[in-house]
Amino acid sequence: MTTDATGADSLALHAKHRGKIEISAKVPLATRHDYSLAYSPGVAAVALACAANPAETNRLTVRGNSVAVISDGSAVLGLGNIGPAGALPVMEGKVALFKALANIDGWPLVLASQNVAQTIATVRNLAPSFAGINLEDFKAPECFEIEAALQDLGIPVMHDDQHGTAIVVLAGLTNALRVVHKHKNEVRIVVNGAGAAAIAVTKLLIADGFAGNKIVLCDTKGAIYNGRSDLGASQKAEMALITNADNLRGEIAEVLAGADVFIGLSKANLLTQAHIKSMAPKAIVFALANPVPEIYPVDAHAGGAVVVATGRSDLPNQVNNSLAFPGVFRGAIDCGATRITTEMKIAAAHALAAIIANPTADNILPFVTETRVVPAVASAVANAWTNK
Amino acid sequence: MTTDATGADSLALHAKHRGKIEISAKVPLATRHDYSLAYSPGVAAVALACAANPAETNRLTVRGNSVAVISDGSAVLGLGNIGPAGALPVMEGKVALFKALANIDGWPLVLASQNVAQTIATVRNLAPSFAGINLEDFKAPECFEIEAALQDLGIPVMHDDQHGTAIVVLAGLTNALRVVHKHKNEVRIVVNGAGAAAIAVTKLLIADGFAGNKIVLCDTKGAIYNGRSDLGASQKAEMALITNADNLRGEIAEVLAGADVFIGLSKANLLTQAHIKSMAPKAIVFALANPVPEIYPVDAHAGGAVVVATGRSDLPNQVNNSLAFPGVFRGAIDCGATRITTEMKIAAAHALAAIIANPTADNILPFVTETRVVPAVASAVANAWTNK
Repeated sequence: MTTDATGADSLALHAKHRGKIEISAKVPLATRHDYSLAYSPGVAAVALACAANPAETNRLTVRGNSVAVISDGSAVLGLGNIGPAGALPVMEGKVALFKALANIDGWPLVLASQNVAQTIATVRNLAPSFAGINLEDFKAPECFEIEAALQDLGIPVMHDDQHGTAIVVLAGLTNALRVVHKHKNEVRIVVNGAGAAAIAVTKLLIADGFAGNKIVLCDTKGAIYNGRSDLGASQKAEMALITNADNLRGEIAEVLAGADVFIGLSKANLLTQAHIKSMAPKAIVFALANPVPEIYPVDAHAGGAVVVATGRSDLPNQVNNSLAFPGVFRGAIDCGATRITTEMKIAAAHALAAIIANPTADNILPFVTETRVVPAVASAVANAWTNK
Repeated sequence: MTTDATGADSLALHAKHRGKIEISAKVPLATRHDYSLAYSPGVAAVALACAANPAETNRLTVRGNSVAVISDGSAVLGLGNIGPAGALPVMEGKVALFKALANIDGWPLVLASQNVAQTIATVRNLAPSFAGINLEDFKAPECFEIEAALQDLGIPVMHDDQHGTAIVVLAGLTNALRVVHKHKNEVRIVVNGAGAAAIAVTKLLIADGFAGNKIVLCDTKGAIYNGRSDLGASQKAEMALITNADNLRGEIAEVLAGADVFIGLSKANLLTQAHIKSMAPKAIVFALANPVPEIYPVDAHAGGAVVVATGRSDLPNQVNNSLAFPGVFRGAIDCGATRITTEMKIAAAHALAAIIANPTADNILPFVTETRVVPAVASAVANAWTNK
């Protein structure tokens, strides 16, 4: 199926149902007595119990099982800054997935403002309403500041474009390395993109024991190295300090030569067979630009890559955030975590990788409908928090 | 059933279900194809359609049928300023009622801040997410400023404590006057409370043709009259200009003597049989303090009142906001209204009153489960907007 046909079918589906989610009452609302328990006067006793101890909202209201999916529409899918209206169907889809995959009740919220301070103030103000906050489709570098400023809310706040992606890439790469019999502390990796997801992926790989000195991040100007004059005080400059120890410079084609792993979070059709041929033997290619990858698997394999992953559901080895975020929030909420730590992300990635007992070149990650994923990820995340 | 027993039963119900609402997906989410339509890549076409024309979110997302129920917890039920956690079960109950009564999908939002500017900024920032905003349980005078500041959002924003109450009181009083054969332009009315609801009730009565010069508002210091030294620049001072033309002064007992109608939005057990006996013949008493009214119907009737209404579901003539807000928002959303006008509120009240073809002393308002209420109110509200 082409993307165009999927788009037309998706439009028809959305128009038919007028969106994708609805709410329902879990309590009966038929008689006067029903109303007196669900609302006034009976609810006064519940209100007083929650006021006396706000943690009671976890037990007595929907809040304890709820996640807000919030976006300002500044970086929606691969579509760019299309604003809140454009972001809304994506956020609503994510809420639907939260429910279908992890039985979490959420609500999509899109913001009129793209001002960082206003976003932070709004989320802070809404925090008493939710057990978790999933930030989504905020552009870099604003996304870093927003997420960092909200870590003291007492509930997990995670920018999924960064960390959901990082968790699934780490899981997939863990299994890909098993397929090609290489080790995480020895592989040379080129990460192409240098946006929020690429930086989060790189940080999580290093936290898991990948050798930062053998990782090279590239942006549109080529390799990022310590001292590159245009980096300023950016996240890229910080990354230059912990990656690329050999101070490699040059275009993607130059730094890719001899690399074991390519992780693309960049743009369509960036690479050719010749690029892949220049890599080390048994190369691993994660071409995650979506919907059109940096290189299609057929070409990457022709260039000698052994394991190829994309973001597409119609190709093997789909790297899809939906493998991570439902279980991460399920686990974090269930254990009462007040934030998502690096250890929880690593635990999530390893649990996800472990779903595939015997990874092969075409099977390094489960599909999102695999029912073992959410319980495994949630359990690992909760254990990582509890044992911290 | 006593309030205490209702409270205990309500606590048990909330704990059993962990709140009162949940969400569900309206689209299938079982297969890879399902995911490709509800989420990536298919949703990109929907995102682009909504970005190109934000009104498409009405047709293609849950937004078109959604209302946020928002509170800062500063004036919850009759419980006072118990904060956001205390407010949350009440807001969730209201969301459940919106769904049960008007098939509106909403979400309860409670705010960490009680700062007026922050509340306004937060609601403005959230506006692209909802088709309507129901403000709830904000205390006076902040509620006036907040509501007024949000009338330009392009979606209906209504503080229900004010206007929901006003609509139902106007409906009930309209029918009560039919019972006692008095006319709205001749009755002398004492409104006791002078809070947000009392002021909204008074304004709506005057807008509907009641004689403002015959209405006396009272606060804890007695009658409000033009020139009372402690009124300052408050809403009360504004009300003094359009009510109490005779400049009556004194305690409630003094101004109530000879009045045709008492409307209490004040506190429990304020009145005695003797107070009611001092009123004009065929008196109407709306004793709306909740759960314990200003005077119980048995005592009011003993004092000579003909029609007595309260806020309680276990007594006749319940004045309950739930008779208004579901239909008001249903109608406003369905007709694409950008705000709730006075004409829409009056139309809602008259439609609600008309449900009772032949009002009697014990039957001036339908109960909330009466299925004709929401369609009648919604239709009247939509017509009032469309014909404005």
